[in-house]
Parts: sequence; structure tokens; C-alpha cells
Amino acid sequence: MTTPFLALDLPKVEANIARLRTRLAALGGTLRPHLKTAKSVEVARLLFDGGSGPITVSTLAEAEAFADAGFTDILYAVGIAPGKLERVTALRRRGVDLVVLLDSVEQAAAVAEAGVPALIEVDCDGHRGGILPGDPAAARIAGVLGGNLRGVLTHAGESYFSYSPAALTADAEAERQAAVRVAEDLRAAGHEVPVVSVGSTPTAHFAADLSGVTEVRAGNFVFFDLVMAGIGVCGLDDIALSVEVTVIGHRPGKGWILTDGGWMALSRDRGTAAQPVDQGYGVVTDLDGRPYPDLLMTGASQEHGILSVRPGSGAALPDLPVGTRVRILPNHACATAAQFDEYHLTGSGVVWSRIRGW
Amino acid sequence: MTTPFLALDLPKVEANIARLRTRLAALGGTLRPHLKTAKSVEVARLLFDGGSGPITVSTLAEAEAFADAGFTDILYAVGIAPGKLERVTALRRRGVDLVVLLDSVEQAAAVAEAGVPALIEVDCDGHRGGILPGDPAAARIAGVLGGNLRGVLTHAGESYFSYSPAALTADAEAERQAAVRVAEDLRAAGHEVPVVSVGSTPTAHFAADLSGVTEVRAGNFVFFDLVMAGIGVCGLDDIALSVEVTVIGHRPGKGWILTDGGWMALSRDRGTAAQPVDQGYGVVTDLDGRPYPDLLMTGASQEHGILSVRPGSGAALPDLPVGTRVRILPNHACATAAQFDEYHLTGSGVVWSRIRGW
Repeated sequence: MTTPFLALDLPKVEANIARLRTRLAALGGTLRPHLKTAKSVEVARLLFDGGSGPITVSTLAEAEAFADAGFTDILYAVGIAPGKLERVTALRRRGVDLVVLLDSVEQAAAVAEAGVPALIEVDCDGHRGGILPGDPAAARIAGVLGGNLRGVLTHAGESYFSYSPAALTADAEAERQAAVRVAEDLRAAGHEVPVVSVGSTPTAHFAADLSGVTEVRAGNFVFFDLVMAGIGVCGLDDIALSVEVTVIGHRPGKGWILTDGGWMALSRDRGTAAQPVDQGYGVVTDLDGRPYPDLLMTGASQEHGILSVRPGSGAALPDLPVGTRVRILPNHACATAAQFDEYHLTGSGVVWSRIRGW
Repeated sequence: MTTPFLALDLPKVEANIARLRTRLAALGGTLRPHLKTAKSVEVARLLFDGGSGPITVSTLAEAEAFADAGFTDILYAVGIAPGKLERVTALRRRGVDLVVLLDSVEQAAAVAEAGVPALIEVDCDGHRGGILPGDPAAARIAGVLGGNLRGVLTHAGESYFSYSPAALTADAEAERQAAVRVAEDLRAAGHEVPVVSVGSTPTAHFAADLSGVTEVRAGNFVFFDLVMAGIGVCGLDDIALSVEVTVIGHRPGKGWILTDGGWMALSRDRGTAAQPVDQGYGVVTDLDGRPYPDLLMTGASQEHGILSVRPGSGAALPDLPVGTRVRILPNHACATAAQFDEYHLTGSGVVWSRIRGW
């Protein structure tokens, strides 16, 4: 196998899935996993013990691929562009219950005309789009949707910047309250609101109460990454995804080891740069997943990576001759995985493909 | 066509190619374009008026795809990992003159055993790998390579951080001198050194002298991008690549327009963040390529972009209703193009595919 390639540790994926399932079962929550991270039919089936179930997607290409694989309950959780409704209705005619998301009267009018069910997006933390709780716009949109109103949805995107269990639990509670509040307001106005959807990987792991919530979305947790480890949602040992690279040179005067994995492999995502511990482009491990002491990928050009010791560390640069293979744990699993077309399952040689494009 | 997609302005590509060809012809330089940016057989043919010629690649997947398309003079300009020599020799057996790059005795021994011609990498600016001019290691490596020594190569990677024509011209001269110095030292020691290869998009456009140089590499220039515009190598009008996105919402209280193009489309590359003028995730233009006054893509999540007015600007947020399409000029063409599998030529509907993987 030519490096760089994407290495996936299946037992860690299975443990990550089991952990969240156990957690949500105790809280009485239903998981609607977000497949935007894995973009893999095989991972989707793992999430349902080999079967099917409700899923979330980030592109219509994902919706179409998962529909082809037998998934029939799909939420497309990006605000709908009216020009995409033709592909949405084509999937619905195939028997897929594809639901869209929106936060404006203009979108609602187009969606109602197409006869597509929709969730109203609620803004719980100022992260992105959505209607603020208490804004009468929600009722206006619901009125335009009529029988196409399926429910409400929110996403605590700002929880990625919370650094304590207490803060993450508070984010989860704010997420729950925002969605439930809008759902209750709409019900008081006479609308049926069967779906109250919340979620993010951090809040799904720290929610203490899911009262009024009908489903929880999370996606990153199947793989985890250094950003999630940095906010305490997982440990380094839980990270199931890495990029395997080969040492191609040394610059002893600079304290550098050069590899054939650059930003084309890792992506340009430097999510930990905004965290208390900056992990560079990633933490370097051996092929058994053991981190080398304080060894990071600290630089990247398109097809070159630079490994060096964490600034301020007294650790010695390990002796890694030309040809040695190591693995890099990524900042952001969603971004790094997207640089590749397939997963290579460590220890088995099995290859799983990824869904590309839009 | 579903947004986001990669839009390519063919007349601008042709003008960018003609400009550099004219420039190098005046200096007596031969262009060996780097296809790491375009990764496209059609763009490669444009570079040679529909024919073939000497090219540079960043992956063996590129080498194989271009070989399939009839290109037979290929430089693989990333330090060779010995494990990749089998794919290299397979291409050479097909009649492709594939040359590799190295900077160590270990690599040279493996390359000589495989009978593959190689360039010795020279470090002209401390950017990455390579032998420093004057280092006796170059002669040791040449001795191990024996008849497999094809020449020397250097790349002024630090020129991406020079902000004046004078500084860029100095970078180009330093690049030339470093490569020529090592070539002359090797010749003085009795080695044949037919190839002296230099290049980067900035230095190729600002070199004043190519004496002793046999070929110039550059890749980004076919498309250009905001980083190149920021250091004065091109104008905004020369940027041939953009991402077409659709408006999906508004947050008037925040001054935001939301689109369906996030970092999955633009990449996480924020190269202009280190420049005097930070262009966010990109400059927003209409479908004729005209920038909206001070409108930038200032935020990105996986499938959402945030457009807002440049901080400190007095420009008004334009009225862009849901469904409006706009284009984003990227920070870094190499990184943004890599997020997509194909180019859509503006105005013609023609689609060109990109080479993926390693």
C-alpha cells in the first residue's frame, strides 16, 4: 500500500459507537447518526448492527448513496437551496423519507410547493443559521409549510469551544431548551411537531437530560480526533482514524523528520491551534498506535510533512530511518478523511470506500 | 449543476500560460510545469498547445495518469520513499522517463539498485528538504548514484512569503545560485549533471537571470489564487479558479449571508491569514467574476459558508436572495481544487476530471 493512506482501527470505531449508544439509551434518546464524517456505507451499517436506521447526511450525494444501500429514513441537515429540490423529490419518489432543513419563508414556499417534509432550523448558540427561540418567524414558516412541517432541529456548534464537562453539559441543556421551546411554541399555535432533533458530538456525550427531544445527531464520534480529545470528549486512545506516512528524509540541524504526508493527506485543518494544547498537524504514533513522546507533525506542504518535537519539550527526536512508517492522528477527522477515497482497516487489509462530492 | 462546484475560466488559464511562456522564452528558460495544482490531462495538454512535453508531478498517481495520456518525460518531485520504487520502475518499463528526487545516501542506494535516474534535492532557503550548497553530502550521494545521477533540483518555497518584486527577484536569484553552485561542485568532482531544475510560481515570474538553469518548474500559475495575488504575482482578475455556491439563508442581525459552500468545498486553507490583507476563506464575486465590494467568505463549517463584509469596511451587504449563485476566489488553488473531482468550464458546460489519490 502506497503511503499516505487512511488507516482505520475498527475495534475503536465499534467501541466509540457502543459508548454513545449506551449513554443515549440511559437517557432515553434515539440516535440519528450524522454520516458527514464517515461517508461510508460500511460505517453506517456498523451503527445499526449491520442493518439500517435513521441517518443524517450533509450532501445529496450521501443521501443518494445511502438510499442505494437501503437506508430509507434520511435527514439532509444543510439549509435547502430551492435548486436542489428536484434531486430531493427524485429520492422521495423512490420511497426514501428524505427530510430537508430550512429557516426562511422563501425556502418554505419552495419546499411546500414540492411537497417535501422539512424541519425548521433553530439557532441555540449563534453558531450559524436558524431562527432564535421566541422569534415569530418560526410560526410564519410553519404556516407556509402547512402539512410539510415535520419538526425542529438545532445544533450546538459552539460546543466545540467548551473546555469542561460542566460547560459541555450546559451547552447540551441550552441546545435542548432552544429546540423544545420552539417546538412547544409551534404546538401552542396549533402545529404538529413530531420531531425535535438536537445534537453534536460534544453535547451528545455530555447531555444530562433529553426531555422533549425525539432524536440526537452526532457524527464525529465514530472516529474522534484531536479537537475532540482537546475538549475532553474522548482520549487520544479513542481516536480510530489516522494517516499512515513514510519517512523520506531528515534535517538534523533543524530537528526535522520529513515524511510523504503533507496537507493533501492531513488537510489544512488546524483545529487544535485554537485550543490550549496546539497539536500542530497531528500527533505522531507508531504502527501500534503508541504516540512517540511529544512528537508532532508541525509543518506541511502539499506532499511533505515535517515531524518535530513539541516546542518547549525536552523529548529527544526518535530515530526513524528513511522508509519507516508512522501514523498521524488528525486534528479533525471530518476534514482529514475527506482527503481520501477509502479507508484501510488496520490489521485486515479490508478497504472501505468513501462517498465523494455533492 | 448542484452547488458547490469548481468553476474554471478557460481564457484566464490560457492567458496565464501564455504570460509565463513568453516570460521564460525571453530568459531562455524551458518550462517543466508542475501538474500538482491542476491534476488534469486537459490542462497539461493546454500547457503544450495540445501536445505533450516535460512535466512535474507530486504523486505516482499523477505520473501514471499522465503516462496513460502520452506524457513520457516526467519528474516526480517529492523525495522518494524506497517502497515506491516498484511503481516507478513499472512506469519506466513502459517507456516513461520518470525521474525521482532524493537527498540522502540511503535513498540513493535504493534508487541505484533499482536503476532509476534521480535529481539531488538542494536546499536554497531552509524551506523543507535538500542538501545545503557546499555540503559534501551531495558528492557522497552522487557517488552512490553513479550513472543514475541526472542532476540537481531546488524549490524556493519561502518565496511565498516575499512581498515585493525586489524580494521575489532576490529569491529567484538565490534559488538559481544554490542549484548552479551544487551542479558546478559536482561537475568539478567529475560527475555529469545535465539537469539543473529550479522553480516556484513566484520565482518563475520574477527571475531576472536563468544562467546555468536548464528548466523551470511552476504549477500554481495556471490558476493563480489569493495568496499569489497577495504577494503581487498576479491580479485578482487573473484568478481562473473559483467555487460556485448558492445562498441558503441570511442572518441580518449578524451581517451574514449563508451559503452551501463550506470548508469541504473551499478547503481549510487560509493562506492569506498570514498576509497583510486577510481575505478570509475567499473573495466573493458574481457570476461574471466581478467582486462584490469588500464581501468575503469569513466563516466555514463543513457544508456552510458565511459571507460578510470585510471587518472595518463601510461597504453595504449586497442583497442576495436565497437561491442566488455567487463564486468564491480561493486562498490556495492547489488546496481548493483538491476538494473536487472535476472542473466545470464556465460558459461552455464542458467538464474536465481531476486525478485523485497517491
